[in-house]
Amino acid sequence: MLVLNEANLLQATSMKEIIDVVEDAYTLYDKGQFQMPIRNQIRDQDNSFLLMPCIANQSIGTKIVSVFPNNKKKLVTQGIVVLNDRKDGSIKALLNGTLLTGLKTGAVGGVAIKHLSPSNVQSVGLIGTGYQGLYQLMGASVVRDIQHIYLYNRSPSKLPAFIHNLQNLLHSKQKIHVVESPLELVQQAEIIITSTSANSPVLPNVEGLFNGKLIIGIGSYQPHMREFPDQLYTNIKQIFIDTIDAKKETGDLIDPLQNQWVHPSQVIPFSEVVTKKVVPTISDEYPTVFKSTGMALFDLLVAEKMYEKAVQKQIGEYVNL
Amino acid sequence: MLVLNEANLLQATSMKEIIDVVEDAYTLYDKGQFQMPIRNQIRDQDNSFLLMPCIANQSIGTKIVSVFPNNKKKLVTQGIVVLNDRKDGSIKALLNGTLLTGLKTGAVGGVAIKHLSPSNVQSVGLIGTGYQGLYQLMGASVVRDIQHIYLYNRSPSKLPAFIHNLQNLLHSKQKIHVVESPLELVQQAEIIITSTSANSPVLPNVEGLFNGKLIIGIGSYQPHMREFPDQLYTNIKQIFIDTIDAKKETGDLIDPLQNQWVHPSQVIPFSEVVTKKVVPTISDEYPTVFKSTGMALFDLLVAEKMYEKAVQKQIGEYVNL
Repeated sequence: MLVLNEANLLQATSMKEIIDVVEDAYTLYDKGQFQMPIRNQIRDQDNSFLLMPCIANQSIGTKIVSVFPNNKKKLVTQGIVVLNDRKDGSIKALLNGTLLTGLKTGAVGGVAIKHLSPSNVQSVGLIGTGYQGLYQLMGASVVRDIQHIYLYNRSPSKLPAFIHNLQNLLHSKQKIHVVESPLELVQQAEIIITSTSANSPVLPNVEGLFNGKLIIGIGSYQPHMREFPDQLYTNIKQIFIDTIDAKKETGDLIDPLQNQWVHPSQVIPFSEVVTKKVVPTISDEYPTVFKSTGMALFDLLVAEKMYEKAVQKQIGEYVNL
Repeated sequence: MLVLNEANLLQATSMKEIIDVVEDAYTLYDKGQFQMPIRNQIRDQDNSFLLMPCIANQSIGTKIVSVFPNNKKKLVTQGIVVLNDRKDGSIKALLNGTLLTGLKTGAVGGVAIKHLSPSNVQSVGLIGTGYQGLYQLMGASVVRDIQHIYLYNRSPSKLPAFIHNLQNLLHSKQKIHVVESPLELVQQAEIIITSTSANSPVLPNVEGLFNGKLIIGIGSYQPHMREFPDQLYTNIKQIFIDTIDAKKETGDLIDPLQNQWVHPSQVIPFSEVVTKKVVPTISDEYPTVFKSTGMALFDLLVAEKMYEKAVQKQIGEYVNL
């Protein structure tokens, strides 16, 4: 089996290729050409352990993720993807699931930006400058000619390391602006991405503030988690979700549906945009909103592509099990 | 993370040590000191894919198993065990799950023989000479001074390779007898182990034939699978199972319970024998029966022990993920 570590994954595929894979995944999702049981989650005190299997194309993939919120030395979220051959069940590859998740989620954001923002946008703001946020900015920078990046973190001490990593990752000359408040960030940026583990909204609850902007939420993935403020929902036409399960998974959809801030018919699987069944209505008069909770089908197809490219490029280490 | 392949696992721990771990696992099972969600099984045409997570002691373990019945070149059943640290979620080790399953199941058989057969038994018969059967004989040979091994396989062409592997594994001088029929095997051997993937009984349906013998079934793990004949149940006092889930998992328990060949009170979790809550009644006048369907708690604790011993003995390959 081929072991692909962080450095291997970055070498094997470009963000552009991963974005193409995510678009393909939406098409398979739309056609129902996959098997994806619900996530198996085990709680152990404060910690969670998730198993996310999926079968599609030529592969069977299992992402194993541990979420240990009290971790100091190790990352809070760590993962591995085991990729099996669908023909004979053998293990083709083991991939660093932490980075794969980052790159994949960045690509999910990138695909959303590609379809839901004007082609001439030049600015993106990020709230929550953790591991995932880094790859959101990478995804955004691939689909749009981003000139200005606005950053906000509740803990400013985390920003210098983040900026250092960001500059290494993007190798380019975007201007990076650290802002003092989420309000300033929303005012400055055309695209706003929230990437936090918050349980209550991280964006200002101000009516009209988000009009004409694209708001992307990738942080909240559980019912008690919220990143979006109530006012964001008052003036929207559509809210796009990466999987229909998101309606049950995240507080950012459970709350507005329960409170009837949005009607169920306004919640649209993004696969219908990618497959051109739905044309998004974008306007300066209201916000455009995309919410991702992720799915194992993305991970599987991204892992399969990374494996194929790594074999082609002779990247990685073969280990005998 | 430490990668432990087949050769490493055989070097790291002895069957004797694994038998001790399985006994410890029964004690933890009895005390309820574990988390073990039900197996997550995905079907893909003829193939199955199983995820078996468990949390106990210092570890979180996930066994991933593929069962591809039409495989010719690769093994039908292949697996990997991912061992995470319960303190910080990081991956401690990846272990060859195929061999681990063989060794563990052999140890489960060994523990059953240790508690359910007279100490002077010298003969064991095996029906179904596949990968798992090999380690059953290894387990039996550790707990009893086995002098005679009787083998039966529906496809005799498979026997020479099996005998070759068996001699390599046991390094000892047991006499190996190939018999012509299951009837002959049961007549000759004091302990009879069935290790097949049969859907209908592989032992002769003859009343009284099994009296005084220990019958161990490790093959059938699904409701449509059966290895034991109807007559085996007519004269038993107790049937021992490795987990209470076995009652719902295997045809070898579902059928006799549904048909009232045995009363539910006769079905006894083997943990109660290991913890001395139940003393098995063994007699020449009826058979003693043990049925295993396995559980992730065994795999987890065996993996943890193999990892600890491998670290101590500096066995295996450290791979950077």
